Amino acid sequence: MPLSAIERQYAVQRLLARYAQALDADDLEAWPDFFVDSGRYRILTAENLEHGLPLALAQADSRAMLRDRVAALRHANIYEAQRYRHLVSSTVVEVVDEEVSQEVVRAVSNFMVARIMHDGATMLFATGRYLDRIALGATVDAARFEERLVVLDSSRIDTLLAIPL
Amino acid sequence: MPLSAIERQYAVQRLLARYAQALDADDLEAWPDFFVDSGRYRILTAENLEHGLPLALAQADSRAMLRDRVAALRHANIYEAQRYRHLVSSTVVEVVDEEVSQEVVRAVSNFMVARIMHDGATMLFATGRYLDRIALGATVDAARFEERLVVLDSSRIDTLLAIPL
Amino acid sequence: MPLSAIERQYAVQRLLARYAQALDADDLEAWPDFFVDSGRYRILTAENLEHGLPLALAQADSRAMLRDRVAALRHANIYEAQRYRHLVSSTVVEVVDEEVSQEVVRAVSNFMVARIMHDGATMLFATGRYLDRIALGATVDAARFEERLVVLDSSRIDTLLAIPL
Repeated sequence: MPLSAIERQYAVQRLLARYAQALDADDLEAWPDFFVDSGRYRILTAENLEHGLPLALAQADSRAMLRDRVAALRHANIYEAQRYRHLVSSTVVEVVDEEVSQEVVRAVSNFMVARIMHDGATMLFATGRYLDRIALGATVDAARFEERLVVLDSSRIDTLLAIPL
Repeated sequence: MPLSAIERQYAVQRLLARYAQALDADDLEAWPDFFVDSGRYRILTAENLEHGLPLALAQADSRAMLRDRVAALRHANIYEAQRYRHLVSSTVVEVVDEEVSQEVVRAVSNFMVARIMHDGATMLFATGRYLDRIALGATVDAARFEERLVVLDSSRIDTLLAIPL
Repeated sequence: MPLSAIERQYAVQRLLARYAQALDADDLEAWPDFFVDSGRYRILTAENLEHGLPLALAQADSRAMLRDRVAALRHANIYEAQRYRHLVSSTVVEVVDEEVSQEVVRAVSNFMVARIMHDGATMLFATGRYLDRIALGATVDAARFEERLVVLDSSRIDTLLAIPL
């Protein structure tokens, strides 16, 4: 029985919500498991994307590469100096190819991320769009990212590379 | 068959999401098409609204006026100097008159808009509420605004008038 | 007939949305009515929670205590000097005990609150998580908080105690 538009929306938003919660809880080890084995992850700037220069600030082409990334982050981040808080909204879901499958969808969402420093100072850290391709599964929590492009509005990227977004 | 509350919520949130995505993508030409022909658009401050002085900072009473507004913005904005990012949440939907129709609804939502300057500096630009009256259609993407009141929390309005919200 | 996952999600998000709207409209008198009679409310810092020191910055153990709190706030806040705007996203809902009941759920959400001063200056005021236990009711708007833990990301708490979050 094909999923209805509302069921797809629910499955997508739940995946996005669980992803955001995991990152904000510093549960980086769970991060690769939101992707399929061959999942692609990119951080880009909007300016680069628009100029046809898809130079990624960070990239991974498989879940294994994401796991390596987590290990590197754990090694580097000796001190947990700050927290992050993701807000996500305005998720628009479209079926990629209605005839082939109703279970692979594209989703576009807006996000803001706040950074909270150890001394309590809070700042708006990053804003942008998520451009996702998602494989829905047999159950709601089986949904996984085939691709997640994180498109940053700002081109100030100095500190953005340190963490998953 | 009347729409269920969940179907109405889905249709409203999808309209709001597509609207936010269009503005943030600088797709101003699509903006008027989110309204019915006689659609009303207002930007007000919360202070003005509460004091019964509904002086609009910006207003349009038809889709044609919205199109004129877009043309003026395109003429004035020679340089695309900044980006905007809308976050919308907490949408509460109510049927206007259950007996007459279940297809015209009021929706109240909260929003924040970030502005990202050309040099990458990011700031919290505007916050407020959307007070919407929406005509749902035969299909989900046929939903249109009959009225959208943008109620700004702040009365600092100098730079707010330049763009649709 | 048990509620479906989508119906539970809808009921939870509507409760959270109505709560946010009420606070932002300064409708504090409505605040206790979002809780059951024995409803618990706590504001904690993430740091305290993680270190097993659940010292609440604010707490109430019943709707009656919440009403007292509102009365105190009304007495103290002679001047309405600022506005607040809540954004809530990424709500993940889980049934507490599938076998006993599908009508008591836990929900985790992310939030940001902006503060808008009387002179119009707008700042990011607080970020964090809501950890909620919610009793769903016979109708959607009968849902009530059995417990709401507001977990602040920042430990700078000087001005956070003045208002409900």
